[in-house]
Amino acid sequence: MTVRNGREFLSIPGPTTVPDEVLAAMHRPAADIYGAAMIATTESCLADLKQVFRTAGRTFMYIGNGHAAWEAALSNVLSAGDTVLVLKSGRFAAGWGEMAAALGVRVETLERDQRRAVDPAAVEALLRQDRAGRIKAILVVQVDTASGVVNDIPALRRAMDAAGHGALLMVDAIASLGTMPFEMDEWGVDVALTCSQKGLMMSPGLGFAAAGPKALAAHQTAGLRTRYWDWTFRMGDEHYMKYCGTAPVHLLYGLRKSLDMLLAEGLANVFTRHRLLADAVRAAVAVWAKGGALDFNILEPAERANAVTTVLTGDANPAPLLAWCREKCGVVVGIGIGELSGRAFRIAHMGHVNAPMVLGTLSVVEMGMQALAIPHGKGGAQAAIDSLARAVPATGP
Amino acid sequence: MTVRNGREFLSIPGPTTVPDEVLAAMHRPAADIYGAAMIATTESCLADLKQVFRTAGRTFMYIGNGHAAWEAALSNVLSAGDTVLVLKSGRFAAGWGEMAAALGVRVETLERDQRRAVDPAAVEALLRQDRAGRIKAILVVQVDTASGVVNDIPALRRAMDAAGHGALLMVDAIASLGTMPFEMDEWGVDVALTCSQKGLMMSPGLGFAAAGPKALAAHQTAGLRTRYWDWTFRMGDEHYMKYCGTAPVHLLYGLRKSLDMLLAEGLANVFTRHRLLADAVRAAVAVWAKGGALDFNILEPAERANAVTTVLTGDANPAPLLAWCREKCGVVVGIGIGELSGRAFRIAHMGHVNAPMVLGTLSVVEMGMQALAIPHGKGGAQAAIDSLARAVPATGP
Amino acid sequence: MTVRNGREFLSIPGPTTVPDEVLAAMHRPAADIYGAAMIATTESCLADLKQVFRTAGRTFMYIGNGHAAWEAALSNVLSAGDTVLVLKSGRFAAGWGEMAAALGVRVETLERDQRRAVDPAAVEALLRQDRAGRIKAILVVQVDTASGVVNDIPALRRAMDAAGHGALLMVDAIASLGTMPFEMDEWGVDVALTCSQKGLMMSPGLGFAAAGPKALAAHQTAGLRTRYWDWTFRMGDEHYMKYCGTAPVHLLYGLRKSLDMLLAEGLANVFTRHRLLADAVRAAVAVWAKGGALDFNILEPAERANAVTTVLTGDANPAPLLAWCREKCGVVVGIGIGELSGRAFRIAHMGHVNAPMVLGTLSVVEMGMQALAIPHGKGGAQAAIDSLARAVPATGP
Amino acid sequence: MTVRNGREFLSIPGPTTVPDEVLAAMHRPAADIYGAAMIATTESCLADLKQVFRTAGRTFMYIGNGHAAWEAALSNVLSAGDTVLVLKSGRFAAGWGEMAAALGVRVETLERDQRRAVDPAAVEALLRQDRAGRIKAILVVQVDTASGVVNDIPALRRAMDAAGHGALLMVDAIASLGTMPFEMDEWGVDVALTCSQKGLMMSPGLGFAAAGPKALAAHQTAGLRTRYWDWTFRMGDEHYMKYCGTAPVHLLYGLRKSLDMLLAEGLANVFTRHRLLADAVRAAVAVWAKGGALDFNILEPAERANAVTTVLTGDANPAPLLAWCREKCGVVVGIGIGELSGRAFRIAHMGHVNAPMVLGTLSVVEMGMQALAIPHGKGGAQAAIDSLARAVPATGP
Repeated sequence: MTVRNGREFLSIPGPTTVPDEVLAAMHRPAADIYGAAMIATTESCLADLKQVFRTAGRTFMYIGNGHAAWEAALSNVLSAGDTVLVLKSGRFAAGWGEMAAALGVRVETLERDQRRAVDPAAVEALLRQDRAGRIKAILVVQVDTASGVVNDIPALRRAMDAAGHGALLMVDAIASLGTMPFEMDEWGVDVALTCSQKGLMMSPGLGFAAAGPKALAAHQTAGLRTRYWDWTFRMGDEHYMKYCGTAPVHLLYGLRKSLDMLLAEGLANVFTRHRLLADAVRAAVAVWAKGGALDFNILEPAERANAVTTVLTGDANPAPLLAWCREKCGVVVGIGIGELSGRAFRIAHMGHVNAPMVLGTLSVVEMGMQALAIPHGKGGAQAAIDSLARAVPATGP
Repeated sequence: MTVRNGREFLSIPGPTTVPDEVLAAMHRPAADIYGAAMIATTESCLADLKQVFRTAGRTFMYIGNGHAAWEAALSNVLSAGDTVLVLKSGRFAAGWGEMAAALGVRVETLERDQRRAVDPAAVEALLRQDRAGRIKAILVVQVDTASGVVNDIPALRRAMDAAGHGALLMVDAIASLGTMPFEMDEWGVDVALTCSQKGLMMSPGLGFAAAGPKALAAHQTAGLRTRYWDWTFRMGDEHYMKYCGTAPVHLLYGLRKSLDMLLAEGLANVFTRHRLLADAVRAAVAVWAKGGALDFNILEPAERANAVTTVLTGDANPAPLLAWCREKCGVVVGIGIGELSGRAFRIAHMGHVNAPMVLGTLSVVEMGMQALAIPHGKGGAQAAIDSLARAVPATGP
Repeated sequence: MTVRNGREFLSIPGPTTVPDEVLAAMHRPAADIYGAAMIATTESCLADLKQVFRTAGRTFMYIGNGHAAWEAALSNVLSAGDTVLVLKSGRFAAGWGEMAAALGVRVETLERDQRRAVDPAAVEALLRQDRAGRIKAILVVQVDTASGVVNDIPALRRAMDAAGHGALLMVDAIASLGTMPFEMDEWGVDVALTCSQKGLMMSPGLGFAAAGPKALAAHQTAGLRTRYWDWTFRMGDEHYMKYCGTAPVHLLYGLRKSLDMLLAEGLANVFTRHRLLADAVRAAVAVWAKGGALDFNILEPAERANAVTTVLTGDANPAPLLAWCREKCGVVVGIGIGELSGRAFRIAHMGHVNAPMVLGTLSVVEMGMQALAIPHGKGGAQAAIDSLARAVPATGP
Repeated sequence: MTVRNGREFLSIPGPTTVPDEVLAAMHRPAADIYGAAMIATTESCLADLKQVFRTAGRTFMYIGNGHAAWEAALSNVLSAGDTVLVLKSGRFAAGWGEMAAALGVRVETLERDQRRAVDPAAVEALLRQDRAGRIKAILVVQVDTASGVVNDIPALRRAMDAAGHGALLMVDAIASLGTMPFEMDEWGVDVALTCSQKGLMMSPGLGFAAAGPKALAAHQTAGLRTRYWDWTFRMGDEHYMKYCGTAPVHLLYGLRKSLDMLLAEGLANVFTRHRLLADAVRAAVAVWAKGGALDFNILEPAERANAVTTVLTGDANPAPLLAWCREKCGVVVGIGIGELSGRAFRIAHMGHVNAPMVLGTLSVVEMGMQALAIPHGKGGAQAAIDSLARAVPATGP
């Protein structure tokens, strides 16, 4: 006895729901990679990515995932033996650091309570000690998909400036770009990166990097450069150089469409939508948490991301709940990963997501807790409804 | 400020949500209509429709909509000047009757309170008076998409039998087939019809009819037969005769897939799913109705359909609420039609629909009532969650 | 050992190759049939069909195939007992006449050698004899898909005018519209009809009719009108009336796109393309015919259609050749139908078809004749290449 | 005046025509990358790639293009300062060598007349001189997409063995796998690589590598390993490790389908199909070459690839011809690249390609030469027809 057969709800933090329009855009015959149409698509995507990263710098498109973007970013500005500072606040900055270490880079890590965002003051203090400028780059994520934290990137830049430190500020915006403000140039970010399958609403398979002037200068002497990732090669004139080889035709068809949709809605509107939906999810979780069994992973409300909410399940493994939601109702909720494996679940609210998708997901999770007798404060879904009803005005555009 | 951009929720009572798998099945090159594959598709669809109608009779596929199926059914068994009895219980039996009248058939109508199902006792009484057997056929819908009523077809058959009346029992199962039990042979239905875009989860464009032995006998002398609708022609051997001309290639690709999905889930499971989701919707509406502004259109709980729920809005036009749901949240709720135009809205729960789709829709409707200050009992969505949580077991298939 | 696996070539005279763009347009979620977007689509399609029929009259869209359009046309202007004159020139005018007869219309037929077009002089002579105006309508096809003939519609109008006869001129443009000029108003055609799956490059499932003022006047007293086909009902204001019921959502998505493509190319360009490709096919068949085994079905070159070429195979059944083309090479060539069943094959060159599709098809047919040792003049494909090379200029748009 | 509007023919050597079935397989909602279905897809693809490479070794799937596969292969078995021998026979082995050089590898190149395949005897002679075993690996392509040459891989292995040299044999099978025999284990190939968009009939975006035991041993000490490419990491147990991050969901959907199609046809049948079609193309080019203006790029018939044919145009730039084919007829023929830029064109016959596609393409090229008055032997397309008619039997499977 299930009420599952209908459209599956994919409420995981990546790959997110790909809009039908984007899937349709990918459903076209292949094209001549030397043709004018394909070249124009490449150029317009690179230009629009500047708008999304909010930079006048250079943008790059890699056939690859987020890890590919990580390696691309590292190898283009660092040399073996360089030191980087990883600001840990979940799983992914650490993972990026492991990748750097595998490249022969020395990695120092600033840790904090794993349920908090990076502390800018601690960063400033640490940097003040590095008078020799040993630290070449700082690696930080804006939103950690595992922990659900959001870091305050402008505050980190202010901390670096206050310390008078010249390290590159390298930001992983994988789980944040297209879900909340990111101002690469205004915030003084030197290298930013993301990939296609989160806020950009595309199928996984493309990684993106953006480089500012300081990063491009560091690139000149970077010893880790290899041909496939190399920015210099990719800034060459010929079309195939943009991808170091064959262009990913169908992925580009999709990206072109998803960027069109993102820019048509308007970044400010996209961010508002994400904020309101995240508020609704948080309203629900706050109610559920009153039951004593669940809690937000991130302790400080201001440090909870608008893209994903990680919910701790204490001693109880969330697997039965997630299986119930998936098998009985067709809702796929994200598992906890890394240190939170078996101890948390994650509700994604990023990308192509609207009120009924979020409310449908919350309703099913609450149903599941009720059906499985998981202690929870009743009325979470109702609180989400109330939150949105207050926020979305009766009239106006 | 909207929370709309995501997958649009189409919660109208037809066309219903077409499964992605069905849309994909239609996205194929055209085929030779004389080829073996196309002929096999026709044969398997005609056979599977027998399973769905639950009949050992003949099935027919028309390129057309529900009105086409109406005209097909009428013209194959009636002659000009014949009399039919229309059992009115909403909008659609009456519409079918108008079509009969336009064909030169005399139409008598049995009316009742429009918020009630057809009364079998009244039918029996009326038929007992028709000693001359003037009435050649009885036209009734199983579910009226406008009013949201469900009629008790076996009870009507018993009433006919009790009256000893030999009229054909002709049932419009457009809004019911694939959402609730229908037993053509067991219930003694002579002609049944439906179309593709409701419980069968397909794009509109196909109408279906099923004929039992008594109907096929009546067909022999029916004066209204025309070539396009004619069962005799369509029972011919050549493939093109099944459609009286070119087969609707892509619609058949889709139908083949939607029938596969329906039968894979199992009709009994499909009906249970619809019942549980309908219960959830009714739980929500019952709560909302406590606010005094809304009410079920159908007075008797037992006469409310599992496919669609019609909600009266009294003096208030529901248009602003529906516009808010659509424009702000991406949920398309059905308007009232016919006599209920401007006085009701309709929440569909038929076809390819699951718990999060229904709960997402209910949540948004409740949000809208709150945002627009429409009086309503608070907690309708919560009641729907509770209803489903009780009904869907924690374990088992 | 086959060289088949690649894109199948569908070279049959309907359904023709549906452009990828049209299939993609159909691959979208269903929509609210009461919504503004769907209404606008209906209106624009009806308007564009006027452009395609070249008429200021009324256009109608039926969910149905060509036979549906036949019945629609007949029932809207005729009464039982009326007499029509069928101008036979292949299979389809006769079929239309059979449909009329089934409606109770009296059918007279003007026959000629079946390998010739209708003779306007014979029509004139016959009409001159009908001083009483017994003949209410003349039924003729512009192109017969079976025989491959093209009739001279303006000449037939001139014949009618010369005879001073007031019958309605009803033209089946199913296999011709979108492949060659058709000027409904200029030529004095009263009723024209077509369907989606030939020159209009769409999936089968839609039939179209156009009515001029004289037809609309006749409609007022037509006794065969039924609700589903009725023009008066379909000229009603409400959207559902345009289709007498639910709109065929996905078929309309496809039609909208195919009309866009047709009008973007420009009708004049479309017709030129068809003429050049038909010339190429005829050049090939003329060479093959020198082998003595094959021949054009249509004797007079000027009477061969630009949409399809029917090739007689004399005493030899073409089935092995067609099977070889299909199984070994992935090319589906049309079979002979009706009286030509087992004695002919048909190469379609209508709709979404270009030089490599036609030349690929011709090359494979010639390969097949060679492989199967079917006597044929060698060099047919080469003649087709030469024909096109001469016709398509080296430069210019 | 064009005869272009129809299905575009993409006759370039990559990306090749993606089958409709594969495009359709990619048109599905995203999925949970931690779900069982996605894990099973990964495992079955890795297993099937072993069948395609014909190896019992390990296979790896990279999100990337052919250049990515190059870098992956190099970095997993080499260290900076190692020496590789590039066997040049066109453009791509040299390009692979450039990539190695950019990684800090020393590159030696064995050149020959660029219109010939690699000479195994020269390889043997060179290796005999390398008594110190300075050469760690030999880089060679099986088919060079630019020159159209096919190298004799087993002969090269024999040459290596004859010289008693222990270098790794690394083969780029990008333009050959799925078009002609490749026997990784039987031929003693240590590392093989390919990508998705040629013989594997998929959209570009995936690169593949296969490693035999000797390569996996060399991998242990390879200094160029980085995390993204690293085989050891990718041999880890967790699903995300197979892709070093998020799985390329939709590309995998497509790959799964294209592998299904390849294996359903059977590799032996696929190779036969390619050989027959290539023979047809070569028959055409041989006739055209008699005109004195065109010639095969590859001098020796035995060294011409079954995947692509490169045609020299002497002093005449082929651009006008290619523009004519594309703009007038909808056929996209490949340009010459690298040293052959402006001096050659390329007709691809790889992947999802059948007789009418090849013959349609050849016919249009011949049309173009005629229309543009390019000197050529007349009857090339006819020769192709004859070649295929002789080769494809009249009966049998």
